[in-house]
Amino acid sequence: MIIKDIIKNNNLEELFANVKIGIEKEGQRVLENGEITKTDHPKIFGVRHEHPYIQTDFAESQVELITTPENNEKDVLRVLNAIHEVTLKNLPKDEYIWPLSIPAILPNEEDIRVAQFEKQFDIEYREYLVKKYGKYKQMVSGIHYNFQLDDMLMKKIAEITQEDIVKIKNDVYLKLARQFLRYQWLLIYLLGASPLAEDKYFTDGIKPTDFVRSLRTSRYGYVNEEDIKVSYSSLERYIKDITGYVENKQLIAEKEFYSSVRFRGADTIKKFPEQGIKYIEFRLFDLNPFAPFGILEKDIRFVHLFIKTLVWLEEEDKNTSESLGYEYSENVALSHPLEKVKYEEEGLWLLNQMKDMVGKVGLLESDIELIDEKIEELKNPELTIGARLLKEYQKENDMAKVGMKLAKVYKEDALREYYSLSAYSNMELSTQAVIEDAIKNGIKVTVIDENDQFIRLESEGRVEYVKNGNMTSKDSYISPLIMENKVVTKKVLAEKGFRVPKGYEVSTLEEALQKFNYIKNKPIVIKPKSTNFGLGITIFKKGTSSVENYSKAINFALKEDKDILIEEFIEGTEYRFFVIEGKTEAVLLRVPANVVGDGKHTIRELVEQKNSDSLRGDAKKTPLKKIELGEIEKLQLSEQGLNFDSILAVNEVAYLRENSNISTGGDSVDMTDEVHDSYKELAVRISDAMMAKVCGVDLIISNIKEEVSATNYGVIEANFNPMMMMHIYPHSGRSRRLSLNVLKMLFPEKNIK
Amino acid sequence: MIIKDIIKNNNLEELFANVKIGIEKEGQRVLENGEITKTDHPKIFGVRHEHPYIQTDFAESQVELITTPENNEKDVLRVLNAIHEVTLKNLPKDEYIWPLSIPAILPNEEDIRVAQFEKQFDIEYREYLVKKYGKYKQMVSGIHYNFQLDDMLMKKIAEITQEDIVKIKNDVYLKLARQFLRYQWLLIYLLGASPLAEDKYFTDGIKPTDFVRSLRTSRYGYVNEEDIKVSYSSLERYIKDITGYVENKQLIAEKEFYSSVRFRGADTIKKFPEQGIKYIEFRLFDLNPFAPFGILEKDIRFVHLFIKTLVWLEEEDKNTSESLGYEYSENVALSHPLEKVKYEEEGLWLLNQMKDMVGKVGLLESDIELIDEKIEELKNPELTIGARLLKEYQKENDMAKVGMKLAKVYKEDALREYYSLSAYSNMELSTQAVIEDAIKNGIKVTVIDENDQFIRLESEGRVEYVKNGNMTSKDSYISPLIMENKVVTKKVLAEKGFRVPKGYEVSTLEEALQKFNYIKNKPIVIKPKSTNFGLGITIFKKGTSSVENYSKAINFALKEDKDILIEEFIEGTEYRFFVIEGKTEAVLLRVPANVVGDGKHTIRELVEQKNSDSLRGDAKKTPLKKIELGEIEKLQLSEQGLNFDSILAVNEVAYLRENSNISTGGDSVDMTDEVHDSYKELAVRISDAMMAKVCGVDLIISNIKEEVSATNYGVIEANFNPMMMMHIYPHSGRSRRLSLNVLKMLFPEKNIK
Repeated sequence: MIIKDIIKNNNLEELFANVKIGIEKEGQRVLENGEITKTDHPKIFGVRHEHPYIQTDFAESQVELITTPENNEKDVLRVLNAIHEVTLKNLPKDEYIWPLSIPAILPNEEDIRVAQFEKQFDIEYREYLVKKYGKYKQMVSGIHYNFQLDDMLMKKIAEITQEDIVKIKNDVYLKLARQFLRYQWLLIYLLGASPLAEDKYFTDGIKPTDFVRSLRTSRYGYVNEEDIKVSYSSLERYIKDITGYVENKQLIAEKEFYSSVRFRGADTIKKFPEQGIKYIEFRLFDLNPFAPFGILEKDIRFVHLFIKTLVWLEEEDKNTSESLGYEYSENVALSHPLEKVKYEEEGLWLLNQMKDMVGKVGLLESDIELIDEKIEELKNPELTIGARLLKEYQKENDMAKVGMKLAKVYKEDALREYYSLSAYSNMELSTQAVIEDAIKNGIKVTVIDENDQFIRLESEGRVEYVKNGNMTSKDSYISPLIMENKVVTKKVLAEKGFRVPKGYEVSTLEEALQKFNYIKNKPIVIKPKSTNFGLGITIFKKGTSSVENYSKAINFALKEDKDILIEEFIEGTEYRFFVIEGKTEAVLLRVPANVVGDGKHTIRELVEQKNSDSLRGDAKKTPLKKIELGEIEKLQLSEQGLNFDSILAVNEVAYLRENSNISTGGDSVDMTDEVHDSYKELAVRISDAMMAKVCGVDLIISNIKEEVSATNYGVIEANFNPMMMMHIYPHSGRSRRLSLNVLKMLFPEKNIK
Repeated sequence: MIIKDIIKNNNLEELFANVKIGIEKEGQRVLENGEITKTDHPKIFGVRHEHPYIQTDFAESQVELITTPENNEKDVLRVLNAIHEVTLKNLPKDEYIWPLSIPAILPNEEDIRVAQFEKQFDIEYREYLVKKYGKYKQMVSGIHYNFQLDDMLMKKIAEITQEDIVKIKNDVYLKLARQFLRYQWLLIYLLGASPLAEDKYFTDGIKPTDFVRSLRTSRYGYVNEEDIKVSYSSLERYIKDITGYVENKQLIAEKEFYSSVRFRGADTIKKFPEQGIKYIEFRLFDLNPFAPFGILEKDIRFVHLFIKTLVWLEEEDKNTSESLGYEYSENVALSHPLEKVKYEEEGLWLLNQMKDMVGKVGLLESDIELIDEKIEELKNPELTIGARLLKEYQKENDMAKVGMKLAKVYKEDALREYYSLSAYSNMELSTQAVIEDAIKNGIKVTVIDENDQFIRLESEGRVEYVKNGNMTSKDSYISPLIMENKVVTKKVLAEKGFRVPKGYEVSTLEEALQKFNYIKNKPIVIKPKSTNFGLGITIFKKGTSSVENYSKAINFALKEDKDILIEEFIEGTEYRFFVIEGKTEAVLLRVPANVVGDGKHTIRELVEQKNSDSLRGDAKKTPLKKIELGEIEKLQLSEQGLNFDSILAVNEVAYLRENSNISTGGDSVDMTDEVHDSYKELAVRISDAMMAKVCGVDLIISNIKEEVSATNYGVIEANFNPMMMMHIYPHSGRSRRLSLNVLKMLFPEKNIK
C-alpha cells in the first residue's frame, strides 16, 4: 500500500487535507520571582477532571490547558489563546504562568504538592510516580500535539485496497509512529528549548557538561527506566510489550509508558486491534518561551505538514527506524544549541520532501515559505528557538529573570483589554463575554459562524446554541416577533393593563390637525418616528391649546421624518431593565455625554481625560464610546453658553449631547440597587407579557425611590436581544455579569460561577 | 349632569370616540326554492353554545352569527363578512342563507325544528316559547347591535361629577335606552325591510291591509303579550317590573322580555345596581336584503352616530319618551314603504343634531355626507331600503324569487375565490387560511397587525399569536436563527450525519482553481450564490478533469454573482417536505412552468387555457402564478426548437422555464402519498436537528419509491416559516390543509377539524 499513490490516483487530496489537531499545554503557576506557587488550583474552575479546558497535570501548581480538536492551526491557536487568557484572568494577582518547560527555580521537594484531584486513584497514581521518578522531573512542562486523519480518508483507502478499515487505521498510525520516532530529531533541533536546569534537578548528580537543546526530550527528561523497551514494529508487538511490563509490575499502568508517541482513542491499548487507533498523540514539544501560549501558529502548521509528510512518504527501513531515531534525537537533544546539526543533509532531504508533498496535494503557497524558513534554521543554528533562548539567558545569566519578563508581558497582554477575549476580538463583546464565561465554567464552546455571532455550547452532552450573546432556545419564536413590531408590542402591553404612551402616527399636518381636538391641553410629545439624536422633538409638558404652536411642532418633526408620532408625554427618566428568566438582573441609567469640571481644565481637556478610559473606544470593540468634539457637541455646548475652551467650575457638569445613547459618548450608570423593587417586578411582568425569557424593558419613571403606581411610569419599549456590555462594564456603578445569567439559563444543572 | 358640556369642557372627545360595537345576525338556512332546510346545523362547527362566532337561534335552521366587539364599523363588518363567508363555505351545496327577516315560504308548523342545543334547558326554553307565541314568529330573523361607551369615559365623568362610576354608567345607559325608544322610529323608517308575510304567519287572522315598512318591529313581530309593560324611567323601576312578571310567571325568565333595548353585562338584571350596566343591545334591525351580510358598513356607522347623538342630547321629556316612542315607531313600522313619514320634521331636527354632534366632537367629514344621505331618504321614501325591496317584489310578485336571487349571488361571491377569505384578502393567503380555519373551529381571531400578518388566537382563555401563518410560540427562537444561516444549517446537519452537499464558496477564478485538485473528476455543480432562475449554473454530472472546462464554468457563474458555490452534485429531483410537530404532513414536487399539447392548440393558446385556472394569478393573492410569455420563456422554448405559435402533439410537454419556482408559473404537485415513508421520517429527523416544530425541508431524491440510504438523497435546505398555500391548493394532487395542523399544534386540547 503506497499511500501517496492511492491519494493521487483516487483524488483523495481533499480528504487528506482534512485533519483534526488538538493541543495540550502544561505550565507552572509561578510568583513574580519565578518561584512556583503553593496555592491551590483556582477554585473558580470547578471540578478539574470534569473541565474540558483547564485541568492540572502532575503538580497542584501545574495548569494543563486542553484545546478542543480543531480543523486547522488558526482555530487551535485561537482556542489555546482563549483558554490561556481565561486562566490568566482568573489567577491571583501575583501569579503568572511560567513560559518555559523547566522551572528556573525548583522548590524544595517537600514544598511540591501533587495535584489535589477529586478521585483518590488520581492522587495515588501521582504519589507512586513521585516514589519512582522523584518530584523534580515531574515539574517539567511541555506541549502534546494530537493529530487525526479524516476517517473518510481511511474508509476510502480501505475501499480501494479492499482491506478492513480498522487494519488500515492501525497500519497508517503505526507507520506514522515509527516515522515520527525516526525523524523527530528535526523537531527537537528546530523547537527544542530546555537548555539547562538547576543542579538539584539532576538527582543522581550526573548532568550535561554544557547547555543543550532540550533537556526535557533527552534522557534527562521524564523517561522510563532503561529496561523498558517497547517496539512499534507491529501493533501486536507494541501491545504485547506494554502489557507484559504492566503484568510483571514494571509499569503500574499502560499510561506509565512514556514515549513521544502515544496511540489514543480507547481506554486500553488492548482494544486497538478491534476498534482501531483513533488518533495519535505526540508528546515531544518543549514550551516555546517566545510564544505567548507556548507554541506559535506557524509551528503548529509546520508540525502538521511534518506529520503529513511522514504519512505520505514510504519508510526507508522499518526495522531500523526506532533505534536510529532514538540515537539521532538523543544526540540532537543533548547537543549545544549553537552547534551545527550532524544530520543536516537528512534534514534538508526531509524538508524538501515536505515541499514536494505540499505541491502534490495542492496546499498553500505560504506552506512553502514556512518550510523554507525552517531550511534556513537548519542551516543556521542561531536562528532556532533554543539558540535564541540561550542568548537571552546569557545576557542576564538568570533564567528566572528571562522567563518572568516574558511571563509578565503575557499576563499584561491578556489583561489589558479586560472586557475582551482577544482570541475572539472580532466578534461582539457580548459574545466574547459568553465565550469567556463558558470556558471558565467548563462549557465547551464552538464558534459556528463568526460573522453571525453564532456559537455552540456543550456541557455533559447537552448542546445549546447562542446567537448575539443572548438569543437562545429558551425564548419562543413569537416573543421577538412581538417585540420587533412596535404596534403589536403596544397592543399586547395595553391589553394587559400596562401604561403605554398612547398616541397617533401621522404623516401630514392635515392628519395631525384632525387629532388636535383629541390631544389639546394634554401633555404630549411630538417626534419623528425614527428619532435621530433628539432632532425634531417638541414636548408640551402641560399640553397646548394653541393650534399654531401645535402646527409648528408638527412641521418641525416632519422636517426630520416622513412619519411622525404624537404621543402622550410621560414625565420622568428612562431606565433600561434587563430581565432574564423572570428576574431583573440589572437596571441602567444612560446619561448624555458629559464632563464634570474641576475649576482648572477646559472642556476639551476634560473630554480627553474621560476618553483615556480604556472602556471608551468605538463602542463596538469597547463597552463605551469616546466623546467626540464635533458640530453637534459644539452646538449643544453653545446652548449652555459654553465652548470647547470653557473651564468649568468644580463639579459643574456640561452636557455635550442631548440624547443619552452610549453610541454618542453617553455614560452608563448601574442603578440596580437604587431602583425600588416594585419597578423590577414590573419589568418582569412586562417581560412575561412579551412571553420573553430575555428582555430589555425601557421604563420612564418619575421617581425610582417611590413604589410603582398605575400612573408614575410608562413603558417605552421592550427589546429582544438586549445589549449586555453596558451592564457588564458600566461607566459607573457595579458590574452585572449578565453573560453568566445567560449560561445559568441554558445550563441550570451546572453550578455556574 | 349635561354630558355634552362635560365632554366639551374636559376634552373628553377622544374617549367619547372610543366605542365598542358588536353585531349578532340571524338568518335562516334555505334551499334553492326559498324553503327552509330540514338539515342539522353543520356538524363541522362543533358544540354550538361554545362557538364564539357561529351558533343557532330559535330554530335548528336559524344560523346566528356573532361578531367580536370591535372599535369601528369597518372591523365589525369585516368580522361579520368573514363569519358569513366561513358559514356559507361550510353549508351543504344546495343550502343558502335567506337574506330577509321574514321567510318567503313558511314551513308547516310540524316541520319546524327548534334548535338542537346540547343543554336540555336551551331546548325546553324554546319549546315553552313555541307554546306561548307559536312557531312562525320565531322564524323571523334580525340584527342585534351591541354598543358600549369607553369605560375610561365613564370613569372621567364620575371623577368630574364626583359620582360613583356605577351610577354614572346606569344613568347614561338608562337615558340612552329611553332616548332610543323615543326616536327609534327614524331607524325603522330608514332601515325597515319586512313589508309582508304569508297569510299563515298571522295566526289569529288579523293582518295589515297593505305592505308595511317593518312587520318585524311592529306588533305583528315577535313581541310580548300586551299586558307586559316595563318602564325604563329608572333602573329600580325597570328591575322591579321585570322581576315582578317573572315572579308571577307571566314571563318564564328575564330574557323573555322582548324589547328593542336590552341591558347587558350581567347574568341577571338584579346585579346592575351594584355592578353597573356594561353595554346595551339594540334588537331593532331588520335584515337589509341588499347587504350581503344583512347590514351595510355605512348603516353600522349611521346607527353608531345615532346612538351617540342620543347620549349627547338632553332628554326632552323623560316621562313621555317611552309612550311617545312606542306610538311613533308602531306607526312608522306599519305605514306603507312609499308613504311620507308623519314625523319628518322631528327626523330632520334629529339628523341635524347628529351633524352638530359630529362637528363638535371632531368626527369625520364623511359622517356629514352620510347623515345628508339619510336626510335625502327622509325626504324621499322611495330611497329607503323598505321601498326598494317592495319595488323588487312588485316586479316579480314572488318574494322567494327576489330573496333567492340575492342569496345565490351572496353565496357565489363568497365561494368564488374559494382559496381566499375575502374580508382579509389583503393579508397573505396562508394567514387567511389560518383565520378561516380558526373561525370554523370556534377559535377567536384578532388581527393585531395586518401588514405584518400578525394575528391573535384565543380559545378557552388561552392566547396564542401567529405571524405569517406558522410562526408561533411553539418554535424556539434559536431554530429559525439556525435555518436562516445557511452556514450554520449545513454545519449542524453535517454534524448529525445528514448528507449535505459539500462545497466551497469562492469569489475569483484564482480561488476556484486552488480547489480544482480537490474536486476534479467528482460530480459537481457550479452556481452563483444567489441563484437567479437557473442562470449561470453548470453541472458536471460525472466530474471534469479539464481545467479549461472548469474555468469556463467558474467564469460563467461569476457573471451572475460576485460569490459562487462549487458544490457536490447530488443527482435526483428536489421535493419540499412540510414537517410540523414531528410529522411530515405534505410533500410537494415543483415542476417548471409547462403546457401539455393536444395536437390542436398553439403553446400561446395552451398557456392562456392554463392561466384561466382561478388558482393562477400573481401568486400572492392566488396560490399559483400565471405563466408569462416573455423573453425568458421564448428563449427556453427556442432551445427546444419551439416558439409561442408551435402546436404540440398530444401529451407532448413543453417547458417554458428551467427553474421550478411557483413564482414563475411552476406547477405544484402533491406527492405526499407517493413518497416512500422513510423520506418522510428523514425530513422529520432533519426538522428535529433544526430543533424546529415547523420546517420546510428540501430534499434531493433519486428515486422516491426507494427506501432512503446514506447516499441516495441530499439535504438542500431547511426553511423556517415554510409556505403553506402551495400544499393547500396544489396544481394537482390532494390538498393538504396545513393551516389546520398549525391550529392543532397551538390548541391540542381542541378537536380541530
